Amino acid sequence: MTQLLNNVYAVILAGGSGTRFWPLSRETCPKQMLQFVGEDTLLRQTIKRVNGLVPPGNIWIVTTEDKAQDIKFHIEPLGPMTKGIQFIKEPVGKNTAPAIGLAAIYLKRLSPESLMIVMPSDHAIPDNEKFINDLRIAIKGAIEDHLVTIGIKPNRPETGYGYIQVDKSSTMEFNDLLKVKRFVEKPDLETAKKYISAGNYFWNSGIFVWKTSKILSEIESHLPSLYKILKEIESILFESDKLNKPEKTTIPQSAIRNPQWSTLYSGLDSISIDYGIMERSHDVLMVPATFQWSDLGSWTALDEIVERNNVGNILKGNVIDIGSQDSTIFAGERIIATIGLKDMVVVDTPDATLVTPKERVQEVRKIVEILKQNGREEHLLHKTVERPWGSYTVLEKRQGYKIKRVVLKPGAKLSLQLHRRRSEHWVVVAGIAKVTRADETYLVHINESTYIPINIKHRLENPGEIPLQVIEVQSGEYLEEDDIERFSDDYGRI
Amino acid sequence: MTQLLNNVYAVILAGGSGTRFWPLSRETCPKQMLQFVGEDTLLRQTIKRVNGLVPPGNIWIVTTEDKAQDIKFHIEPLGPMTKGIQFIKEPVGKNTAPAIGLAAIYLKRLSPESLMIVMPSDHAIPDNEKFINDLRIAIKGAIEDHLVTIGIKPNRPETGYGYIQVDKSSTMEFNDLLKVKRFVEKPDLETAKKYISAGNYFWNSGIFVWKTSKILSEIESHLPSLYKILKEIESILFESDKLNKPEKTTIPQSAIRNPQWSTLYSGLDSISIDYGIMERSHDVLMVPATFQWSDLGSWTALDEIVERNNVGNILKGNVIDIGSQDSTIFAGERIIATIGLKDMVVVDTPDATLVTPKERVQEVRKIVEILKQNGREEHLLHKTVERPWGSYTVLEKRQGYKIKRVVLKPGAKLSLQLHRRRSEHWVVVAGIAKVTRADETYLVHINESTYIPINIKHRLENPGEIPLQVIEVQSGEYLEEDDIERFSDDYGRI
Repeated sequence: MTQLLNNVYAVILAGGSGTRFWPLSRETCPKQMLQFVGEDTLLRQTIKRVNGLVPPGNIWIVTTEDKAQDIKFHIEPLGPMTKGIQFIKEPVGKNTAPAIGLAAIYLKRLSPESLMIVMPSDHAIPDNEKFINDLRIAIKGAIEDHLVTIGIKPNRPETGYGYIQVDKSSTMEFNDLLKVKRFVEKPDLETAKKYISAGNYFWNSGIFVWKTSKILSEIESHLPSLYKILKEIESILFESDKLNKPEKTTIPQSAIRNPQWSTLYSGLDSISIDYGIMERSHDVLMVPATFQWSDLGSWTALDEIVERNNVGNILKGNVIDIGSQDSTIFAGERIIATIGLKDMVVVDTPDATLVTPKERVQEVRKIVEILKQNGREEHLLHKTVERPWGSYTVLEKRQGYKIKRVVLKPGAKLSLQLHRRRSEHWVVVAGIAKVTRADETYLVHINESTYIPINIKHRLENPGEIPLQVIEVQSGEYLEEDDIERFSDDYGRI
Repeated sequence: MTQLLNNVYAVILAGGSGTRFWPLSRETCPKQMLQFVGEDTLLRQTIKRVNGLVPPGNIWIVTTEDKAQDIKFHIEPLGPMTKGIQFIKEPVGKNTAPAIGLAAIYLKRLSPESLMIVMPSDHAIPDNEKFINDLRIAIKGAIEDHLVTIGIKPNRPETGYGYIQVDKSSTMEFNDLLKVKRFVEKPDLETAKKYISAGNYFWNSGIFVWKTSKILSEIESHLPSLYKILKEIESILFESDKLNKPEKTTIPQSAIRNPQWSTLYSGLDSISIDYGIMERSHDVLMVPATFQWSDLGSWTALDEIVERNNVGNILKGNVIDIGSQDSTIFAGERIIATIGLKDMVVVDTPDATLVTPKERVQEVRKIVEILKQNGREEHLLHKTVERPWGSYTVLEKRQGYKIKRVVLKPGAKLSLQLHRRRSEHWVVVAGIAKVTRADETYLVHINESTYIPINIKHRLENPGEIPLQVIEVQSGEYLEEDDIERFSDDYGRI
């Protein structure tokens, strides 16, 4: 076990909405919460990746206010590893420069001398050891007060990425770090081919290391209007404790929902750190990555990182295929039967299916746009929603009723709650339920049912040792999730 | 209203299993029960088509024993039109020559002088008036003791059909009927092109008209071994009433389940009427069809008969498409999102989805084969099963429980029944239920529930004036449909 770096903070950017992996990704289940490769979801792998490098309390997740609860629930299975993790909640998403700036002003307050490792939450990096080694090299450069980025050696003339041009002769001077000549925007194919043959161009991984003070001074130089607002936000955030010495371990949660700074933040321009800082700064070093990497920018990116079968297919779930080639077919429990597909992507989920040639996968964003315009819900939510206590699955929703399968882990309990506009019938189909209803508490066994009338406080618990499964039939004219009043909750949702 | 032809019988062949339209067709919902075009399903349209020509009692449906109940339920919505319809039940499907022979021996007994119109149940013929006119011409030829077939003028060199070569100079002699020179097997493309340019070749529609006595004598000549078995079956079938005069209106149902003739029939060779008789007979006339026709042999056949949009697509259900062309996309309630497809077929159902290029749709049979081999159920049943009393939909089936939505029409009642291996929880979500449970009868209103224990006789009725909707949660280790004992049933299922 190597020593943890107490003054280094891993700032994980997890605000992405991930429309590019629809229908597998949804607004409430963006790409970083999906498992494409490896043993866990992208976000949880990202946390594990830095876990051996910095203390848990030095892992910060930047995301939007509306996603924070889902992300908290999502990382909960990591257990003790998540204990100290801090959340920086943006009132709305404003791209990476404001997000990083916001994290920096918090961090400056807690630890003025700190270093930040900024990293996306939704990239695939299978080789952790190499990643950590490269980060250690980057940290050396950051300690010497440079902006440091990690560059990926390109293996094809990709036109979807920005490139980093380095000065190859600079290696000696900076010990394994290369001096960056310039960041360049996404090239056309001709230009990309030139970059590849030139040999001194790298892909921009979006992973950065710098001193907190350094990035703030760069923001001051290159994005002065952002800097000005960040300073205002800082003074609002820390007004209440300006006479006290800064807390050393946690972010002042009381300040987070302050409407004054929310309005300021919401008024910021959306601008990326690449465009706003990296392209303009003259003091950037690059570590050439030794690890395998994919940004998983679209369904076709899986081809780089997931093993394909001998005819080039990636098949997952209940697929019956006859003679397809070079295709990606993601099924779940439903049968997906495919015949003779070539360079296609088929993705099935319980409520929506996508079928597209690989060359047009980028247009899935347009599908999501159309769903939004049509007022549908297939871009928002999955039928199954994971929760720390278990999960629920909407089996059917029609006029006047909704049916859910609710699964509670052994020992788990839902909040004490009531609904103003619906009643609920519960049938236990596995395990044993402990039900609180108004003043009574009773057990409901398998093949027994109970009824929760409208306006009655109730709670469902699993006192048993196997998962409790309840079929819930909701009855009422309004059946949305927001018809809930919570009185007590193990998960802090009051 | 033209006069009905009392001595003419419409024999509708409805034994097909329709694997070619999977996943929309299933074993219990074959192609003839699907609605592709027009205002009703193919089978119901077939019945309506001959309804103005022959009396209802002269409409006979030939199908296999195991499909007969489903077909009876399926045609029930036609109301009085179905009152006299007779079913000829084959113990197993044995292709068209045995099926037609079996119908002929029944028909000979009931009406020795009768004419048979033999027709498939799963073809699309949008123009009924022209169809009836062409049949009337065919009947004239049949009365003069010829075998008469209806030929379709080909509009392309199709290699999937047999062809009929006619003697074009023969028209005058037979009044609108053409003398058939020969029936030919499916040609290769080169040959098919020659047929088209020759001008005297027609597609074989599978619609035939002849005297009952004529087809039996042709079977005797060309398929003597089939004839021999048919004679044996005849003697078994009518043994019990051999001293009585034949019944004039109905088929002796008592004879149908006789195991002796079942064994004989099951031992017959599968042979088509085309191959067995039409290719061999020297006395065949043809009426050139004036009506539009499609045999709907595969998903691509819809292109001939269903209107396509301005970019050649057929889109049905919840499809969101960006830029597809010449593609057929069948969705249901789930969202199917398609981008840039070309000459593709995508068919979605609640439990299975098919994606294939049009040029490979024939291989859907192989998918069905694989499902069978894997012991799955997606080729057998749909999630929703229509019944004369309403319908049921399986919403979820997992270890230990199954959830159904059961819908009863106003006034409908299920059978008085019990289950040996499951209990049931019923939650009423629309309408009002009248429940019989052992000796009690009571009403269950919306947002109320009741419980049916194992081994208890029960019945569900809809005494109200709107559809009754019940969510049924079955609980038990064995949850198949065959765990049912019926004691009283409005639909004759005891």
